[in-house]
Amino acid sequence: MKRFLQKRSEKSGLPPGSLVHVGEKKLEKAQISIIDFDETRYQELAPAAIEEWFPFKDKPTITWINIDGLHETDLIEKIGRHFGFHPLLLEDILNTGGRPKIEDFGDHIFVVLKMLYQEEGNDSELLSEQISLIFGENYVITFQESEGDIFDPIRERIRKGKGRVRKESADYLAYIIIDAIVDNYFNVLEDIADYIEDTEEILLAKPDAETLQTIHGLKNDALFLRKSIWPLREIISFLEREESTLIRKTTRIYFRDVYDHTIQVMDTLDTFRDIISGMLDTYLSSMSNRMNEVMKVLTIFASIFIPLTFMAGVYGMNFEYMPELKWPWAYPVLWVLMLTVGITMVVAFKRKKWF
Amino acid sequence: MKRFLQKRSEKSGLPPGSLVHVGEKKLEKAQISIIDFDETRYQELAPAAIEEWFPFKDKPTITWINIDGLHETDLIEKIGRHFGFHPLLLEDILNTGGRPKIEDFGDHIFVVLKMLYQEEGNDSELLSEQISLIFGENYVITFQESEGDIFDPIRERIRKGKGRVRKESADYLAYIIIDAIVDNYFNVLEDIADYIEDTEEILLAKPDAETLQTIHGLKNDALFLRKSIWPLREIISFLEREESTLIRKTTRIYFRDVYDHTIQVMDTLDTFRDIISGMLDTYLSSMSNRMNEVMKVLTIFASIFIPLTFMAGVYGMNFEYMPELKWPWAYPVLWVLMLTVGITMVVAFKRKKWF
Amino acid sequence: MKRFLQKRSEKSGLPPGSLVHVGEKKLEKAQISIIDFDETRYQELAPAAIEEWFPFKDKPTITWINIDGLHETDLIEKIGRHFGFHPLLLEDILNTGGRPKIEDFGDHIFVVLKMLYQEEGNDSELLSEQISLIFGENYVITFQESEGDIFDPIRERIRKGKGRVRKESADYLAYIIIDAIVDNYFNVLEDIADYIEDTEEILLAKPDAETLQTIHGLKNDALFLRKSIWPLREIISFLEREESTLIRKTTRIYFRDVYDHTIQVMDTLDTFRDIISGMLDTYLSSMSNRMNEVMKVLTIFASIFIPLTFMAGVYGMNFEYMPELKWPWAYPVLWVLMLTVGITMVVAFKRKKWF
Amino acid sequence: MKRFLQKRSEKSGLPPGSLVHVGEKKLEKAQISIIDFDETRYQELAPAAIEEWFPFKDKPTITWINIDGLHETDLIEKIGRHFGFHPLLLEDILNTGGRPKIEDFGDHIFVVLKMLYQEEGNDSELLSEQISLIFGENYVITFQESEGDIFDPIRERIRKGKGRVRKESADYLAYIIIDAIVDNYFNVLEDIADYIEDTEEILLAKPDAETLQTIHGLKNDALFLRKSIWPLREIISFLEREESTLIRKTTRIYFRDVYDHTIQVMDTLDTFRDIISGMLDTYLSSMSNRMNEVMKVLTIFASIFIPLTFMAGVYGMNFEYMPELKWPWAYPVLWVLMLTVGITMVVAFKRKKWF
Amino acid sequence: MKRFLQKRSEKSGLPPGSLVHVGEKKLEKAQISIIDFDETRYQELAPAAIEEWFPFKDKPTITWINIDGLHETDLIEKIGRHFGFHPLLLEDILNTGGRPKIEDFGDHIFVVLKMLYQEEGNDSELLSEQISLIFGENYVITFQESEGDIFDPIRERIRKGKGRVRKESADYLAYIIIDAIVDNYFNVLEDIADYIEDTEEILLAKPDAETLQTIHGLKNDALFLRKSIWPLREIISFLEREESTLIRKTTRIYFRDVYDHTIQVMDTLDTFRDIISGMLDTYLSSMSNRMNEVMKVLTIFASIFIPLTFMAGVYGMNFEYMPELKWPWAYPVLWVLMLTVGITMVVAFKRKKWF
Repeated sequence: MKRFLQKRSEKSGLPPGSLVHVGEKKLEKAQISIIDFDETRYQELAPAAIEEWFPFKDKPTITWINIDGLHETDLIEKIGRHFGFHPLLLEDILNTGGRPKIEDFGDHIFVVLKMLYQEEGNDSELLSEQISLIFGENYVITFQESEGDIFDPIRERIRKGKGRVRKESADYLAYIIIDAIVDNYFNVLEDIADYIEDTEEILLAKPDAETLQTIHGLKNDALFLRKSIWPLREIISFLEREESTLIRKTTRIYFRDVYDHTIQVMDTLDTFRDIISGMLDTYLSSMSNRMNEVMKVLTIFASIFIPLTFMAGVYGMNFEYMPELKWPWAYPVLWVLMLTVGITMVVAFKRKKWF
Repeated sequence: MKRFLQKRSEKSGLPPGSLVHVGEKKLEKAQISIIDFDETRYQELAPAAIEEWFPFKDKPTITWINIDGLHETDLIEKIGRHFGFHPLLLEDILNTGGRPKIEDFGDHIFVVLKMLYQEEGNDSELLSEQISLIFGENYVITFQESEGDIFDPIRERIRKGKGRVRKESADYLAYIIIDAIVDNYFNVLEDIADYIEDTEEILLAKPDAETLQTIHGLKNDALFLRKSIWPLREIISFLEREESTLIRKTTRIYFRDVYDHTIQVMDTLDTFRDIISGMLDTYLSSMSNRMNEVMKVLTIFASIFIPLTFMAGVYGMNFEYMPELKWPWAYPVLWVLMLTVGITMVVAFKRKKWF
Repeated sequence: MKRFLQKRSEKSGLPPGSLVHVGEKKLEKAQISIIDFDETRYQELAPAAIEEWFPFKDKPTITWINIDGLHETDLIEKIGRHFGFHPLLLEDILNTGGRPKIEDFGDHIFVVLKMLYQEEGNDSELLSEQISLIFGENYVITFQESEGDIFDPIRERIRKGKGRVRKESADYLAYIIIDAIVDNYFNVLEDIADYIEDTEEILLAKPDAETLQTIHGLKNDALFLRKSIWPLREIISFLEREESTLIRKTTRIYFRDVYDHTIQVMDTLDTFRDIISGMLDTYLSSMSNRMNEVMKVLTIFASIFIPLTFMAGVYGMNFEYMPELKWPWAYPVLWVLMLTVGITMVVAFKRKKWF
Repeated sequence: MKRFLQKRSEKSGLPPGSLVHVGEKKLEKAQISIIDFDETRYQELAPAAIEEWFPFKDKPTITWINIDGLHETDLIEKIGRHFGFHPLLLEDILNTGGRPKIEDFGDHIFVVLKMLYQEEGNDSELLSEQISLIFGENYVITFQESEGDIFDPIRERIRKGKGRVRKESADYLAYIIIDAIVDNYFNVLEDIADYIEDTEEILLAKPDAETLQTIHGLKNDALFLRKSIWPLREIISFLEREESTLIRKTTRIYFRDVYDHTIQVMDTLDTFRDIISGMLDTYLSSMSNRMNEVMKVLTIFASIFIPLTFMAGVYGMNFEYMPELKWPWAYPVLWVLMLTVGITMVVAFKRKKWF
Repeated sequence: MKRFLQKRSEKSGLPPGSLVHVGEKKLEKAQISIIDFDETRYQELAPAAIEEWFPFKDKPTITWINIDGLHETDLIEKIGRHFGFHPLLLEDILNTGGRPKIEDFGDHIFVVLKMLYQEEGNDSELLSEQISLIFGENYVITFQESEGDIFDPIRERIRKGKGRVRKESADYLAYIIIDAIVDNYFNVLEDIADYIEDTEEILLAKPDAETLQTIHGLKNDALFLRKSIWPLREIISFLEREESTLIRKTTRIYFRDVYDHTIQVMDTLDTFRDIISGMLDTYLSSMSNRMNEVMKVLTIFASIFIPLTFMAGVYGMNFEYMPELKWPWAYPVLWVLMLTVGITMVVAFKRKKWF
């Protein structure tokens, strides 16, 4: 349940705009890394103190500042004060239980997204890490909860000048970061697809009580995925259409492409939900089929032997005057009779296709 | 059911605008408290008679008047007459069975909200208390059904001048009151989340008929929560967008933040509904699994012993001419035969994975 | 089913605007009553012939004409001709199987509503009576299917000059009539709420096949209620917003209040539907629980005694060479064995928590 | 299934606008009938060749041309060429598998509707016949799949000058034709209502496997009805609002009336779907109730006699040293014991209300 | 699952606009074919090198270029560079896992559609092939995944000058290609309809566990169909309404016709989904009926013979003092008694209609 609702109790009663980190502390110390580039120059830094990179703000080059770790609230506050960010924006960066959102503050646009990853371990659940992104005229700032991300290929492309990123402006950099996150959803979907396929095979072969757990796990994962991705549609469609001067027309066509991907993710997710709910039906009717089978075995045994036992019981009675008991052929005749009854029953059940 | 529909029978047949308190009487005597402040001054009052605080209306300072207890209808009427509130507004304050709403009367805005709390006792249900809020240029009036609320941190902030509340105007005060109510929903959601988690564990371990009751209790709580919170979306979105001169542009961004929280509450609630309905499925299939298990035990016993009993019955018959009865090895041979049949059956059931 | 679809066969093939009463004839003779008033004067009439009250049309006072009984189509036609009502309007008054609607004809507005009441008798269903209302500049005409209504408190208020009705114009009178009908829905909802509560208690205690009937009765009542009330939202929202000169601005705020009530009725109804569908789930799983219980009793008895019966059967065999039969302690030893087996089984079932 | 999807294989690969009749051939030869009238004159014709009635096109009187039978594609083509109809319009007339639609071609409006009727025979399904209607300034052309229709009362009204049809223009004639079709839906709904009522009675009395078939038949009929009627809403609302000069303002109010009827048909249909789905629930739980009853009978018999049989088995054993066998009162004492056990069981089951 | 989500792993990390073929390689070598025509001339080519057909671009005749096979990414790139297509457009052509879409690039319109076909083999699933279509002023380019298509009748029509295609412009050619694809959906729907009909017959006759598989297969096929066709509505409605100069007004009416077909496909698909879900209900209740039947057989046998066996057991006891044993008529009297009991039971069960 934790993934569906982050505990916010620490925050209750505080004035709005109070900076409190809501969520797990995933890093010992916040880490800052800076990439500064334009078409010709390129520079990479990992400053110890934040103040070192403030001058980059006013240079014409594009600066990508990445902060891993959200628990050092004074660090976040310093950045906010320097760049003139609204206290509520900073609050949203720190509140990792929020939902994806976009806000246009005129000279900068603020986007909150969720990156999804599979928890490690046996009974792993799907979890999310919040990525906040602010971009202005010539800078992009990203905030992550923990170290390690899916942006290394982007850094590599900037370093080596591959693709168009060095030739474009900050909105294009924001685009490729968002694109990488959306692309990552396809990987998560592929994992789920594989898992669904495996579970479907088990369902056909030998479903048990655990299979039900698996199906419900899948269902809850799909629910979580939906909750994390659903607001994206609105966000990307905002980026594609908004009249902000921060997004150039040539970049907008790229955001439309991300929008298409988002729709496809949502579509696929809806299909998965339908498939998973079909699996539940299959599970329930396979349970009911099995019950049927058990009942049939019982019925066959009981229906065949109960009448025979009765017959045997009759000639086990001790009446003095039972003429059959003295007939020499009575015993073999009874056997014939009993076999006839038994075989008739078997034939009758065979006809009903019970076995 | 009472929480879903307040009895209004007393009101039927009365002319519109009649002031009748619909709901339980939760307080002996209505209590009035006043906080009057601006950036520099601060004053707190608990007047005996209402008329004492009417002069505050025309002072430039911000006045927050809070009334606990709604059964003294003449008190409400006096306030209404003094401030020029529409009779229907007063009727809505008194009707605690109404749904959350907002109405703009030009020089004051009227908001009805529901504060949620867990009933005390064992089998506690989620209940709501109605909070009506009217704010104008320089005053905020809140009406509550009973004493005790979640606004103490706000009062503390005003007293000590923490946060921005002393520097802002009445709309900001209205905002922090509404924000506190919405924030409180998260606490309720956290309680429900804990409860869901506990119930899920029971479901996996040993579900019984009571578990079903618990699940239905959760479902009805979620239904009640939804009913109480759903209209909020519209209300807050009205506050965020409305062209009323009572809400300044800088406050609007705060209402947008509350709007985001409201959406998140609704979202989480929808997720909970899906999870609860999944729990019902699990319950039902665990019932069906258990039935299966019971049937298997019966079938195993019956199928093994019914044929053996028949065999024993055969040699219990009293025919004079039964050659087997006189054979010296007949008895041990029959035992061997019976053991063979029994073991065969056990092996067959083992193969079917019945136990 | 009749309540869901009135038989219209008599009408098929007739030209549009043909006046045929669709519905049950509930009164022997149509009854006309007139109330004529303004702030100072008041007059009440029950004319024998319709023509008597035609002169009221042109007086400046407000006239409320009420007709009980719809089968005298020529009466309706006379009124229509005199006031210049469209033939389709008259057709709608007579067709009690229609749905609630509103139509603006410029100098008069036509509203069709349903008043709900519980059928008398044991197995009572919820039924509806159609109320048609036409109001113009200075008159309100209401048509009802049968005698007796919920408007007596309104008449009393007019007579005694209570409330604002004598000071307002015809649109306000129309408002209080509509308000009375909507208010009445709350009474119906309260009845249903009580009925749901009773049924929930039976469900927990001892549900049987009849309980299912009750639940389905409730479901169909909710369905019928929804069908009768759903169109109201549109109707009242039309009255609240429409630019008709017949509705004054001060009355519009009252219609907004009715609109809020309508939304609340719909909301509560939706909640009831969810609760009723939850009751169905409870019913089904309590059935399945009971089956489980029955199965357990059978399984316990069979599993304990079937092996014991087999043992007894073995020593009932008549072989000549069965050494055990001659051992002096064989009989008590067997009893010990049988008791051991029986007790073991009981303990095993206790451990599985089967009883 | 055929009724849900007409085979169109003959058409695949042909250029658009190819005239191919899709559907069953229901008539040997197409039949043409013409009614030509204005307020004073009236003339009826059944021409052998189509060309005979072309001159009517240019007369000021209103001409209603009705063609029964769609398989003579060259006939349709001649008409199309003469009146200047678009090839796609003609294609739609011939394709009886299409859905209801409306298209405005400026000087004529094209409407496709479905007339519903019950198939004759035992296991009758609901079927539809396509009716295409084109109306211009002074003519209405209707195309039907087979002879015999529901328009005879209209023809009678024209002949005898009843109603307003002779005084109005072509749009009014189109209106009464469409009105007749919509009115006919009420008859179909009444049949279904009767059928539902019968099935509900069977459900309460003695449901069997066939009842399930009936319920599913009803469900599919409702599905088919919905598919055939759903698009009507759009069509009629188009006729009511469209700015076409072909529809006069006075006729529009009549189309609004048809619109109301259409909404009522849809509403009633939705209610029926809910009722039918409730019947399915009742069926399933009555099945489950019956299983419960069967189980109880089995359990009662088995639980009473299995212990007794065991007792009898014990004293059927042949041990030499069984002291009870020699006691003179042993046999009657055992009977007392057995009766006690049996009666105890019966009382216990009675208490559980098992019978 | 593969058909619901194409593996895209190869693409992750690449810059946007990278040309990578996502999907199965279905052809050894890409094949190019060109048809160039106007009202009088006609020419068909299968060039070896792509450059050969570049000159056609600037001729006034209409050129239809068809490329089968998408794995030769440099071929696609050359075409893109020559015609000035956006890199994202080329990426979409190659990504066969995308969803249907339309994009207007001013001087050319890009459409992605899915052609559906039944996989060959026993357990065949419905699969899709992506068809991308770009059309400009005087050319249409189509990209297909594999050889062989449904466009042969179109080629034939162009060759022989049948229909209007030779007289119209490129937008009309695009229309007939899209129309052919949508028409093909009807064939797929007809296949599914046949399959549903077959399955319904099996359901009524002798459903087994495999039938459930079939129903789920149908459900997933319908899901896949929906996913592939759903976006079409938007696409065709775009073509019908868009203000692009590339689509002439006369062609728009044809697109409206395709739009109608698309709606009909969606409609029919929704009906199929309802029917399939009804089949699942039938399956489950037929399972439950069969369980009932099995239970009844068991109960009948057990309830008849268990009491009789008990009676026989009583007189099999070895008490010394059992007076009945010595009565001469005891044995036949017992038989009469046992027959009476047995027949009573049979009659009782017959009355309950158990067999």
